[in-house]
Amino acid sequence: MNDQYYMQLAIDMAQRTKGQTSPNPIVGAVVVNNGRIVGLGTHLKAGEPHAEIHALNMAGEMAKGSTLYVTLEPCSHYGKTPPCAERIIKEKVKRVVISNVDPNPLVAGKGIELMKNAGIEVVVGVLEKEAKRLNETFYKYITSQRPFVTVKTAMTLDGKIATFTGNSQWITGEKARRYVHQLRHEHDAIMVGIGTVLKDNPSLTVRMEQLGIQPIRVVIDTTLKIPMDSKLILDQQAPTWIFTTEQASEEKVEKLKDMGIKVVQTKGDKDVPLKEVLHYLGRNQITSVLVEGGSSLVGRLFDERLIDKYIAFIAPKLIGGSSSLTSIGGKGIENMSDAVQLIDITIERYENDICITGYPSYQGMEEK
Amino acid sequence: MNDQYYMQLAIDMAQRTKGQTSPNPIVGAVVVNNGRIVGLGTHLKAGEPHAEIHALNMAGEMAKGSTLYVTLEPCSHYGKTPPCAERIIKEKVKRVVISNVDPNPLVAGKGIELMKNAGIEVVVGVLEKEAKRLNETFYKYITSQRPFVTVKTAMTLDGKIATFTGNSQWITGEKARRYVHQLRHEHDAIMVGIGTVLKDNPSLTVRMEQLGIQPIRVVIDTTLKIPMDSKLILDQQAPTWIFTTEQASEEKVEKLKDMGIKVVQTKGDKDVPLKEVLHYLGRNQITSVLVEGGSSLVGRLFDERLIDKYIAFIAPKLIGGSSSLTSIGGKGIENMSDAVQLIDITIERYENDICITGYPSYQGMEEK
Repeated sequence: MNDQYYMQLAIDMAQRTKGQTSPNPIVGAVVVNNGRIVGLGTHLKAGEPHAEIHALNMAGEMAKGSTLYVTLEPCSHYGKTPPCAERIIKEKVKRVVISNVDPNPLVAGKGIELMKNAGIEVVVGVLEKEAKRLNETFYKYITSQRPFVTVKTAMTLDGKIATFTGNSQWITGEKARRYVHQLRHEHDAIMVGIGTVLKDNPSLTVRMEQLGIQPIRVVIDTTLKIPMDSKLILDQQAPTWIFTTEQASEEKVEKLKDMGIKVVQTKGDKDVPLKEVLHYLGRNQITSVLVEGGSSLVGRLFDERLIDKYIAFIAPKLIGGSSSLTSIGGKGIENMSDAVQLIDITIERYENDICITGYPSYQGMEEK
Repeated sequence: MNDQYYMQLAIDMAQRTKGQTSPNPIVGAVVVNNGRIVGLGTHLKAGEPHAEIHALNMAGEMAKGSTLYVTLEPCSHYGKTPPCAERIIKEKVKRVVISNVDPNPLVAGKGIELMKNAGIEVVVGVLEKEAKRLNETFYKYITSQRPFVTVKTAMTLDGKIATFTGNSQWITGEKARRYVHQLRHEHDAIMVGIGTVLKDNPSLTVRMEQLGIQPIRVVIDTTLKIPMDSKLILDQQAPTWIFTTEQASEEKVEKLKDMGIKVVQTKGDKDVPLKEVLHYLGRNQITSVLVEGGSSLVGRLFDERLIDKYIAFIAPKLIGGSSSLTSIGGKGIENMSDAVQLIDITIERYENDICITGYPSYQGMEEK
């Protein structure tokens, strides 16, 4: 057994709570005393105890002289709960192993300092990269005050997201589509463009064997074309927020508000400014957004370098057609040598479908 | 050791001769006597000895009482060489293990019958599927008199084969591009549409560390727009065949012929009829064609259900752009539920690029 062994367990536990702790990060903790695991904990919900506290509670008297593994630096400040660092000191933990320093610049390192000053041996950086990826949405949110933006797309092996008539149901098989519901559960909001609403009338809800958490549904709708009988307006399965502009009919805005739909109007006669939308979402503690199309919205996000993660499901089928759409519309990049590279690629299979995930690397490219 | 063990060796050897035996199939043979390999052989070139003969020559007197493994049924007729079945009988081979019966309906089973009548134990069907894939081009050719058509394409993870300006160099990395040269070496002909010639002025030659075999270069050019200074016309690295129609200028046809270019004119004022082209190629002992684009030609092949194999290289990069082309143009399929499924999917990595290969399954779809 080594530090990696126990930290991996802490990461594995935390992973399963993805989607339920927002706007807080997901965190796992393991207490080990004399070669035996004596405490386990994860953060479960914002406002409730942190992972370390659950683990120390379970350890009871065995916390004394133990090693505590925790995926994120214990906090040092009074928030909704008392500081974890103080509890760790009080319990006489001997050694604390941490993956990552708190990314919040206001508190980074202060928990570590407190514990060190109390004579605790502190090790930082074990499975650092893995734990950081675990909280990729939180990191983005806490450092930029904007949500982490993941684009999810599904295409045929000839690169198309729909046939020439716009038909897209279904590209991928059942297993891939089930995974999309898990992805939704893990995000604070789902975003689509108005074109997707008009074409597919989606509900954008989480439908899983076990009940999932319903994210907020966000529609980008510059001229407020959304039909009053859309599922997003009538089904009341989750909140729906519509971003539109001053071009929207005031009467329709009022009608939607009366029905409990949030309508946010941005200034100007152009398209809804997407970066402003993301800032608005961040101010409302939305830390992660899953964008599910269409081509035009994803194109605008891409042109403005606002995509943080790209998930492409590829179905091994061919559809042909010179006028079929691809996943990213917009203006695009002129030269292939300037293409946006994806890094940290992973490839997974979902039955016959292939899922390729990566992170756009905008190095040297200014966010527009 | 079992029959699979030796047959796999025969397949592995044959695999390496892909591209050099056309219009003959690739074949491997192994002779085993008393638990020891005593003979190895592959067919090397049309007109030269078959695999079994090389292996029996190597075995010499040890052929007597041996087991012969061969990936394809030994021949029973006098072609450019005497029949292998007779030689096997003469050498007093005890047992013959075969993957596949000869697909040529005129001779299928006759070699087996000859050997059985001579008292040899014959086993058929060991690694049958593997050996059949090995000769997928030969099987198509011998049963349809048309070449096996493989489409090779390269796209970004957002499904595009070029930027909005048409720029496509390079989508994939060096390792994937090297593999394409091996693919060319393995085919009798490379086919492109005139659009690709006009845009990229490609040479379509095999460039490898070791010298490769140069396939014939085929251009589909309905109105004979090919520039007289194209590499395909001037470089003399390999034969170039241009398929055009009666819309072509007679003067230009003559000029091209004078320069050693084969020009085939089809009747009518529509596009070059692709199925006729394939029959023409088959009549000229072209057993395999690698189609390297563009979108329009591949679209027509797809619409006519003429694609036998599809190889898609996917580069983990994004380019965006609503007007960028995808790999298969043409009319396309109307409903996603009617998409052409690919079967026997394989996934390979070439550095950062992913290569997905599959076989279109046209079950229930009439070839047009």
